Amino acid sequence: MVAVTDKEIHIIKNGNVTSPHGFSAGGLHTGIRKTKLDFGWIHSDNPATVAGVYTLNTFQAAPLKVTKESIEKDNKIQTVVVNSGVANSCTGKQGMSDALEMQKLTADKMNVSTDHVAVASTGLIGVPLPMDNIRTGIEAMTNREHYSPANFATAILTTDTVTKHMAVQIEIDGETITIGGAAKGSGMIDPNMATMLSFITTDAVIDHESLQKALKHTTNQTFNMITVDGDSSTNDMVLVMANGQQNNSVLNESHPQWNDFLQAFQYVCEGLSKQIARDGEGATKLIEVNVTGAASNETASQVAKAVISSSLVKTAIYGSDPNWGRIITAVGYSEQPVDPDKVSVSLGEIAVVESGLPVDFDENEGKQYLENETVKLNVDLQDGPYEATAWGCDLTYDYVKINASYRT
Amino acid sequence: MVAVTDKEIHIIKNGNVTSPHGFSAGGLHTGIRKTKLDFGWIHSDNPATVAGVYTLNTFQAAPLKVTKESIEKDNKIQTVVVNSGVANSCTGKQGMSDALEMQKLTADKMNVSTDHVAVASTGLIGVPLPMDNIRTGIEAMTNREHYSPANFATAILTTDTVTKHMAVQIEIDGETITIGGAAKGSGMIDPNMATMLSFITTDAVIDHESLQKALKHTTNQTFNMITVDGDSSTNDMVLVMANGQQNNSVLNESHPQWNDFLQAFQYVCEGLSKQIARDGEGATKLIEVNVTGAASNETASQVAKAVISSSLVKTAIYGSDPNWGRIITAVGYSEQPVDPDKVSVSLGEIAVVESGLPVDFDENEGKQYLENETVKLNVDLQDGPYEATAWGCDLTYDYVKINASYRT
Repeated sequence: MVAVTDKEIHIIKNGNVTSPHGFSAGGLHTGIRKTKLDFGWIHSDNPATVAGVYTLNTFQAAPLKVTKESIEKDNKIQTVVVNSGVANSCTGKQGMSDALEMQKLTADKMNVSTDHVAVASTGLIGVPLPMDNIRTGIEAMTNREHYSPANFATAILTTDTVTKHMAVQIEIDGETITIGGAAKGSGMIDPNMATMLSFITTDAVIDHESLQKALKHTTNQTFNMITVDGDSSTNDMVLVMANGQQNNSVLNESHPQWNDFLQAFQYVCEGLSKQIARDGEGATKLIEVNVTGAASNETASQVAKAVISSSLVKTAIYGSDPNWGRIITAVGYSEQPVDPDKVSVSLGEIAVVESGLPVDFDENEGKQYLENETVKLNVDLQDGPYEATAWGCDLTYDYVKINASYRT
Repeated sequence: MVAVTDKEIHIIKNGNVTSPHGFSAGGLHTGIRKTKLDFGWIHSDNPATVAGVYTLNTFQAAPLKVTKESIEKDNKIQTVVVNSGVANSCTGKQGMSDALEMQKLTADKMNVSTDHVAVASTGLIGVPLPMDNIRTGIEAMTNREHYSPANFATAILTTDTVTKHMAVQIEIDGETITIGGAAKGSGMIDPNMATMLSFITTDAVIDHESLQKALKHTTNQTFNMITVDGDSSTNDMVLVMANGQQNNSVLNESHPQWNDFLQAFQYVCEGLSKQIARDGEGATKLIEVNVTGAASNETASQVAKAVISSSLVKTAIYGSDPNWGRIITAVGYSEQPVDPDKVSVSLGEIAVVESGLPVDFDENEGKQYLENETVKLNVDLQDGPYEATAWGCDLTYDYVKINASYRT
């Protein structure tokens, strides 16, 4: 978790990917989905320095491969184009040629280099990309009526129920630097990128290597620490575009304000991550698991992930049942070196286990606490200085309902 | 999966832990649970050679520690005593002394050596063992009216809806050898022993080392290949008692019929595993995942486990949705070296993916197949000779209902 004072980071109300200078975004309905907007884009006035992280799933979708290869050429992109409804995954050669065509047509329409276009798709696996709809979308990309960051934030959603976006500002070298972002999540969100798309924009001047390093570091503490159901998908990625429209001196690790930038960047990633976790399929609550006192970073994050991923913990929270036995059980099977006699657990401020033994607590008070919309489960391993936080949601009837009938 | 011909293995109708010679079993209601039988035991006329496997959870419950230590002394037990309702886990020193008292009182009552008594508990974590009820149960252990293997099979259950038991016979050295077993499962069933208790009895003559080896090998292919919700508990174990009441020559790996014994033993373990998987909390279907063509044993079993554990696969099966994309996704995040372009998938006999690409199939036919009570998902990696099978169940509204209100 990022500790933030208002002095350092200014949160822009209703901020979005176009909050930083020099970015525009839009979206429209092309008919891939029944009525929801299904096609969107972000465009920078100039080629932006880019960094990316991608799904670890062995089955990587065609658009992801195309984007990754293009980015690696000169680490710049100018336009990101995204469709929802069809993932263009497990689509073989046809899928690759469709993704390449989507990239090429966009480049032509927006008058940018082909390699400076990133493509992304999310939705059903094994269905060919409906190129007629994609072409309709691309044709409309220069039409001002579709321009709106809200349209973009909506167009990338699948079973999400709300849009996810935010932006913050900080002073760097006396310049006001803005960082914005939009994301989609919903089911299948898991550590290691899972049906998750996230696009972050900034007008800071930053070199590619530092941006990539910042993204990797931050992703491990934010996007990789959220889970909805433990599945991870074939299409997921986080892209950051830095178009350098401000006049700060180049950001990198030796810049005196590097940490300020990193903190603001992490604040955006953490904010989007929490928005994704809270909107997990069927979720009614955001669960935050804080592990402290771990002997290593690895132990802290693995224990946090074991607890946040436990179906039994997730259903207990749904039922507002202060059943700490399930938390302890998850800590125990995390395959980490944990001393059972040292572990303490609290639900918010309510201590329920101290050094491995149950604490007498008021069950009604516990139940009441768990009825909050945000629930904090704190696990202190009392074994070292490391800590980690993971976010997730409760497991509900609606999760089953949504996923038992996603297609048919 | 075990290939069995009726010639080799005879299945005893309604078989149980008392099917082998020299074993008796019983159970009664002592008041730990509201009305269900909550206390049971198995007794052998003579000290039996024993083998055991235990939960890998860091938090091991007191009865498990006591049993493990006692067994290690001379690899014999004569009596197993079990209660349901309270797990005697996370109960500190009190828990250890309660488990030891339960063991000692049983030994005195049954007139056996203290070290020849195994104790087991299953139920709520963090609650002290209600020793008054336990004493009531032990006092009744010599009362014939409570003797019945069905009572035992019922007494060990928690949220299970049906008893799990079976027995088979084979000829070894011209002697009829019987192997019986009873188990409890329900939620929290996972690879690596999870709220799972299984007790297997046989009248074969077998040495300890070979029995332990057989149990370990077989557990990896049966009990460790079932999952209900991915959680693994603090109390789980499988114990095998071989009282040697038949006159076969000592079974071990150099015995000419070792494989016959192993096959019958595995048949019982697999049968109990499937009964457990089918009765997962809220389950309506048994799912069997068969992975073939793997480059290693590890890959075969990890891919099978990834698919059987996927909440998205489990809810799709519940909804009879032939959404093979979720199967492919799980294969992809199993962290195994899999070539996406080689993977083929079928639902029963219906091919849906061939070498990484979708097959045109009749969705209605797929839906119809998934409405069966037993559903087979076949994944061929086309990459080697290894295979593995995993069993699980669908994820339903009732799973959420049961687990959102287990305690309160």
